[in-house]
Amino acid sequence: MSDAFPVVIGTCLDAEAIWTGRDASNADRRVMLSHGTFAIKEGLAPLLDLFDTHGVKSTFFIPGTTADRYPDAVRLVHARGHEIASHGHGHRPTAHLSPQEEKQELVTGIDSLEKIIGTRPVTWRSPSWDWSEHTLDLLLENGVTVSTNFHDSLRPYRHERHGKSVDVVELPVQWHLADAPYFMYGGQAERTIRPAVDAQKVWEEEFDALQDCPGAFYHLTLHVQLIGHPGRLKMLDRHLRHIKEQPRTKILTAQELAASVT
Amino acid sequence: MSDAFPVVIGTCLDAEAIWTGRDASNADRRVMLSHGTFAIKEGLAPLLDLFDTHGVKSTFFIPGTTADRYPDAVRLVHARGHEIASHGHGHRPTAHLSPQEEKQELVTGIDSLEKIIGTRPVTWRSPSWDWSEHTLDLLLENGVTVSTNFHDSLRPYRHERHGKSVDVVELPVQWHLADAPYFMYGGQAERTIRPAVDAQKVWEEEFDALQDCPGAFYHLTLHVQLIGHPGRLKMLDRHLRHIKEQPRTKILTAQELAASVT
Amino acid sequence: MSDAFPVVIGTCLDAEAIWTGRDASNADRRVMLSHGTFAIKEGLAPLLDLFDTHGVKSTFFIPGTTADRYPDAVRLVHARGHEIASHGHGHRPTAHLSPQEEKQELVTGIDSLEKIIGTRPVTWRSPSWDWSEHTLDLLLENGVTVSTNFHDSLRPYRHERHGKSVDVVELPVQWHLADAPYFMYGGQAERTIRPAVDAQKVWEEEFDALQDCPGAFYHLTLHVQLIGHPGRLKMLDRHLRHIKEQPRTKILTAQELAASVT
Amino acid sequence: MSDAFPVVIGTCLDAEAIWTGRDASNADRRVMLSHGTFAIKEGLAPLLDLFDTHGVKSTFFIPGTTADRYPDAVRLVHARGHEIASHGHGHRPTAHLSPQEEKQELVTGIDSLEKIIGTRPVTWRSPSWDWSEHTLDLLLENGVTVSTNFHDSLRPYRHERHGKSVDVVELPVQWHLADAPYFMYGGQAERTIRPAVDAQKVWEEEFDALQDCPGAFYHLTLHVQLIGHPGRLKMLDRHLRHIKEQPRTKILTAQELAASVT
Repeated sequence: MSDAFPVVIGTCLDAEAIWTGRDASNADRRVMLSHGTFAIKEGLAPLLDLFDTHGVKSTFFIPGTTADRYPDAVRLVHARGHEIASHGHGHRPTAHLSPQEEKQELVTGIDSLEKIIGTRPVTWRSPSWDWSEHTLDLLLENGVTVSTNFHDSLRPYRHERHGKSVDVVELPVQWHLADAPYFMYGGQAERTIRPAVDAQKVWEEEFDALQDCPGAFYHLTLHVQLIGHPGRLKMLDRHLRHIKEQPRTKILTAQELAASVT
Repeated sequence: MSDAFPVVIGTCLDAEAIWTGRDASNADRRVMLSHGTFAIKEGLAPLLDLFDTHGVKSTFFIPGTTADRYPDAVRLVHARGHEIASHGHGHRPTAHLSPQEEKQELVTGIDSLEKIIGTRPVTWRSPSWDWSEHTLDLLLENGVTVSTNFHDSLRPYRHERHGKSVDVVELPVQWHLADAPYFMYGGQAERTIRPAVDAQKVWEEEFDALQDCPGAFYHLTLHVQLIGHPGRLKMLDRHLRHIKEQPRTKILTAQELAASVT
Repeated sequence: MSDAFPVVIGTCLDAEAIWTGRDASNADRRVMLSHGTFAIKEGLAPLLDLFDTHGVKSTFFIPGTTADRYPDAVRLVHARGHEIASHGHGHRPTAHLSPQEEKQELVTGIDSLEKIIGTRPVTWRSPSWDWSEHTLDLLLENGVTVSTNFHDSLRPYRHERHGKSVDVVELPVQWHLADAPYFMYGGQAERTIRPAVDAQKVWEEEFDALQDCPGAFYHLTLHVQLIGHPGRLKMLDRHLRHIKEQPRTKILTAQELAASVT
Repeated sequence: MSDAFPVVIGTCLDAEAIWTGRDASNADRRVMLSHGTFAIKEGLAPLLDLFDTHGVKSTFFIPGTTADRYPDAVRLVHARGHEIASHGHGHRPTAHLSPQEEKQELVTGIDSLEKIIGTRPVTWRSPSWDWSEHTLDLLLENGVTVSTNFHDSLRPYRHERHGKSVDVVELPVQWHLADAPYFMYGGQAERTIRPAVDAQKVWEEEFDALQDCPGAFYHLTLHVQLIGHPGRLKMLDRHLRHIKEQPRTKILTAQELAASVT
């Protein structure tokens, strides 16, 4: 890696699971679900094209129920060379789960993806960016070696158990480097929607400043249902251009970056 | 339609029903209701003039109770050549209704408008942008052929029942292409009010980018009580100018665009 | 009035009452109350100076409990030539009051001001911008001839009872022409604080556009505890300059403008 | 002090205590806690370097539980010449505490810091910017001579008991001169995140205008977990440059400024 500046782009392909995971009764709210369906019907194809244009390999986090419902979307993402990563099964918040349920969410989420792509994903993100006291053991038992959940660092690091580092690398995330705080609207969230240039401003303030932090990397979090609208995709195009203008930039999947963490 | 880029402007003329539909006890809150009354007393006339200036035919969604109370407003909108569309009767959220109530809301809402304009509207929008499992049947039974409720596509499409397309066309909407997320304030909503130029920025980011999406259309959602303030109308004037500068632009009512969907 | 464009600046001098009116138990929360105390200790003097610099006579809405506690502040505002107007007694929301309580709030609020300035105020604003079904009668019985509560018009108008106009003029207000949506923070409100230039942008979008609306007036709503911070007062200085650059501008108190309404 | 314009920069080093203080059950939510851990792992070192670059001595407010957990961080801040100030023990809101608990929070918070730096801090900030009716007595009994909690003034002042000034100086704070309203996200707070330049705009509107207020000072409130992100630190760098361009600027700790208050 030497002087390279790693960039990881994590993309959540939640579809309807983002709503049913919060509250199972949302399954009857067809219009609310349609916010998620947008990801499949509209957002995914041009986002994949944009990634191709810029030579970006992204890490796609896909809930098991979404994979079950849209296996062709998973195959398409996989065929275009992106990393397929687990995002639980039903997009249910970890804090609401019993230990048994947490295990089942993790295992069945991975199973659903394996059935489609033939290999078990090694990267995982909790649907709610949360861990319980059981999570690390569950990850180790299930071959998950990359977590993208914690907010405590600008740098990748290796998790520890009883003071010894284990085979799970953390690639920390930040809320201000996600699309949701600027674009999420509907359901319970009714804050003001921001122009796409506003998100770009925050992201580039941080991207530029991160250049001066040895060992740091840039970790962007996208949701296909939010970023996949045409005006926001144009902004992402400008943002990717900006990222690539920095000569040290090296865009990697989560798995690729984690592999370099000692 | 060929190379034309369709633009549909849906305008909600809710008046007081937006408050009483949420909570019947708001009927006693005279000042809260006055936010809605603004649409009738102030917002409607200059908005209609602005539409005339730009040759815009809009689709007006009017709740039955509002039509009952302000039949002259309905006549005026109709006489100026805009499409009159149904918006339920009492502006009550679909998710709060029994199947029987949902039917009654739809039927009486249409009846109220027919009494005034002499024809039954064919376009309908749920007051809460929501559908139940009964909605499609109710629309088919009541001659509604255009729905503007779902958020899943940039393109018009035909609804299906048991895998077969039926005579209801969907013209999908988007929250970021509405005025409410930037201007709604009072009642339960107390987020920051934005300058009108901020909404214009979001709308034009999206309008410009939609030009590159074959089959897509631009669907703007307005509320007379929000957009009908003088500074915001000036912004809408600039926005309509921008829309019309694009040579492919063809401004249509919801019914007109739906008629071209095969 | 002829060709003049009337401007009314209503200023709420709430002090601690804004917190105790919401919840009496806030009386024990000394730091929360200190947000209100700022109005008396810091905000009022430079605001009065700024009004003098621009020759502005404002209408000050002062709750009775605030007047009881700070009679010198009331005398000062009065001596500088501003209108003293009633804002209830304990800044309690109308919707939470019994008819008897509503009457008492109105009467004792007026009494408190009369004790200090020797005359009974004729202008009144509900602390919550709300009216009950009893309010109009109460206003008529208590010599209130000017209300600044409704949101339904850009123009002053006369209230009606049983279809006949009565001796209460309404000077309607708008939330986007207040300072609170941009600056209010703390207590229950925790939305994003905006730069002062952002509020100025919204206000001037509307001020400029109102010039083209015959019969309309510009009605700005300020709170001493919010606008009275130095950076925001600089913005108000710029805004008042902008208002006065318009040659038709005529700045009036609420009572003065209401007197011209037939 | 004469013509100098005092600037005080109060920095909260809360770490995980900000979450466990709100709700003890958050101790199990490892990812939520990681928002706080960021302060220790990432934010503190570059913030201290930036302060050194500008010759800034800040006042650091550190909860006792954070000091117990990260004594080296306290030693580092102290060794770099900043004031160590108390911020309670468990970052628990004053309004939720019994008188006995309030006393214990204050005393044990101070004890924790004394154990590390060898002296008892004299400056204190409530974790919730709140005082009970017992607070002043508790401060006097425990040698706290500087409070930074109230919002009622632009100027330092001395607290009073029974009408007589006592040995506790208040250095008032303002929410709009803090970082939290623009950057706080996660947990219960889910308002829109703002670009760093937006906070800088508000801060400099106020800093510049305060120059004209005799006796006033500029009091900035930072949280290491929020301001310690690279893009925001670049903004703070620009802001400190702006502060120092004003020739009257004199940057002081809270204790230093309070010592000059008669």
